[in-house]
Amino acid sequence: MLSKSMEKALGNSSAIREVFEYGQKLAQEIGEENVFDFSLGNPATRAPKKFDETIINLIQTTDSLKLHSYTDNSGIAAVRESIAANLNERFGTDFEAGNITMTVGAGGALNTVLRTIVDPEDEVIVFAPFFSEYVHYIGNYYGVPVIVKPNLTNFQPDMEDFKGKITSKTKAVIINTPNNPSGVVYKEETIKQIAEILSEKQKEFGKEIYLISDEPYRELLYDGAKHYFVTKYYDNTFVCYSFSKSLSLPGERIGYIAVSNRMADSKRTSVALKTATRILGFVNAPSLMQLAVKECLNEKTDLTYYETNRKILLEGLTQLGFTCVKPEGAFYLFLKSPIEDEIAFCEKAKEYNLMLVHGTSFACPGYVRLSYCVATEKIKRSLEQFAKLAKEYGL
Amino acid sequence: MLSKSMEKALGNSSAIREVFEYGQKLAQEIGEENVFDFSLGNPATRAPKKFDETIINLIQTTDSLKLHSYTDNSGIAAVRESIAANLNERFGTDFEAGNITMTVGAGGALNTVLRTIVDPEDEVIVFAPFFSEYVHYIGNYYGVPVIVKPNLTNFQPDMEDFKGKITSKTKAVIINTPNNPSGVVYKEETIKQIAEILSEKQKEFGKEIYLISDEPYRELLYDGAKHYFVTKYYDNTFVCYSFSKSLSLPGERIGYIAVSNRMADSKRTSVALKTATRILGFVNAPSLMQLAVKECLNEKTDLTYYETNRKILLEGLTQLGFTCVKPEGAFYLFLKSPIEDEIAFCEKAKEYNLMLVHGTSFACPGYVRLSYCVATEKIKRSLEQFAKLAKEYGL
Repeated sequence: MLSKSMEKALGNSSAIREVFEYGQKLAQEIGEENVFDFSLGNPATRAPKKFDETIINLIQTTDSLKLHSYTDNSGIAAVRESIAANLNERFGTDFEAGNITMTVGAGGALNTVLRTIVDPEDEVIVFAPFFSEYVHYIGNYYGVPVIVKPNLTNFQPDMEDFKGKITSKTKAVIINTPNNPSGVVYKEETIKQIAEILSEKQKEFGKEIYLISDEPYRELLYDGAKHYFVTKYYDNTFVCYSFSKSLSLPGERIGYIAVSNRMADSKRTSVALKTATRILGFVNAPSLMQLAVKECLNEKTDLTYYETNRKILLEGLTQLGFTCVKPEGAFYLFLKSPIEDEIAFCEKAKEYNLMLVHGTSFACPGYVRLSYCVATEKIKRSLEQFAKLAKEYGL
Repeated sequence: MLSKSMEKALGNSSAIREVFEYGQKLAQEIGEENVFDFSLGNPATRAPKKFDETIINLIQTTDSLKLHSYTDNSGIAAVRESIAANLNERFGTDFEAGNITMTVGAGGALNTVLRTIVDPEDEVIVFAPFFSEYVHYIGNYYGVPVIVKPNLTNFQPDMEDFKGKITSKTKAVIINTPNNPSGVVYKEETIKQIAEILSEKQKEFGKEIYLISDEPYRELLYDGAKHYFVTKYYDNTFVCYSFSKSLSLPGERIGYIAVSNRMADSKRTSVALKTATRILGFVNAPSLMQLAVKECLNEKTDLTYYETNRKILLEGLTQLGFTCVKPEGAFYLFLKSPIEDEIAFCEKAKEYNLMLVHGTSFACPGYVRLSYCVATEKIKRSLEQFAKLAKEYGL
């Protein structure tokens, strides 16, 4: 007898994983080379060589007890200090080691933040389209997700709908830029507007409303797009970061939370984050990985790879008559379904061995997501399949 | 404004960490060599050489994408298969890969299990003395901890009190053998009795009551003590394991959950565990560590070290007139306070630079915990300090 809460979670099981598993099954039947799987956001470029060299070097030169022991629940002080200094250098922030909490990836970071601030019935606002796990993360602590409808013009948030959704029960707002699934990067003006609205509403309701910025794709930017560091615009911001994408380490579960000294009650909040990390059973971010990322803060995975894939796919699909949301970041392309029922469109795509994820799972029906973490050669070949699919809809 | 639930957790902050931090501060004043810190259970022996060699070998011979990518949420199939086979060989169980869910340590395992089965107001029974984090873990999902009083005769569970505490709201029972903080190992008869009582109560209430066996100290046994594998005695058991102690890797956060095919609805429960791992933000146990422990399932940290410490401390303290619970496992010694108020006793011990953790934090007043993860030479020197402390109480 599972918990009612888990039964609910199982009912909302991941559409992404379902498509992926269908693709895997199909690959066994017709060969992997014939399945064009755009479902998963699993980085397709290797970790920087320096990362692996750093691990070997750490093992060869450092006392085993230092490498593998429990660390402070908030992480190793020297690692947090380096991350703070690196952020300050890159983004003109003013973090100290005490502002950083090392986490088990961005998933761990988001759960740690939500455990820290959410009571049952508290509302947490998300902007459609959004990463479907947010609903589960909020639900773990019996918070209530409140969805702002998508702005189909440019996929920046719909500010009017946002304003209307903030109530006295609003505890936090989650943003995600560069965005999964749309690939859109929030403009500086967007961040400013969100900050302004939240500041007004904080006054109106006489309480803190937290902004949670989920930014694992921060370094994956194209066409000169820029990332605006959110703590500089709004004091009550939790920045949740992961090295999963920038260093291609999603399996290693290493990331952090950054808060500013200007956050309300920031010292006590940092103690709470450290406590949440402990009591959720994370205990500390993996110790060897903490030490390794410290040496790789200026390293990056091969971005040209994603850039190439993006270009081929965007140009190819547009030429075929599909309408794409212009992706300026991350490794996703959001495609407008040629028919209203995008779930049916995804089913049709499967007939051409194309695995796409329906927008309904991102609270944005009518669109589908393509993850272009796929070999470039395969992306090229997939365009022949997309051409056939396009014909089905008279494009 | 933190959540009410987090405010409560901060109020119950860890007594262990407080003593540890006091000791650290004192060390800065009088020198580390003069502080006898028995507070933390941070292994003091290095990981097996083979573990570090395995990591270097994996990096040198395996494709980076295979090492660091997301794994299946339940872990890498080959790793789970090896663990199942290893358990079967050592304990005569009949696990398959599908019965194993890789986790972020035992803390992650316990949270994953509780997220899977606990709804708000569900009761979870714990036996005093117990690891104080259990109360937080249960509280994360708004479950209610119900405490069975300690059996001060031999620190096996008090079966009469246990029976009386099981109600229609009981969802699970947590056991921990070898035990933190008592060092006691449950006898086979104890496991049998618990299984029998739970089977009866399952029938009486017409529902599953789960047994959660938290066993990170399973390999740390002395004086020929034996570990009885709980799934063999009771079908509805979740075994939560960590490599933290057996391989001295607490910082790396690697462990697993094992369930038997005879558990009620076992297949679906395994899917739920995998889902809980995902939605709690663990996503998967650290990937490189999964691959590394696979090669080290028969490795062990240096147990003679703990054995030596245990002997010196047990004999030394007994000779000084202290009464100790006989420790047969883990690396803890539970000492009877010579005065009823063991918190005052701990304060007095601090005057002799001895850092002990009061039993109240383990729901067992009148006793104190010593972790003997301390250099042997220091343990020897600590006895002079304990001699002075004994005199204070006329021992």
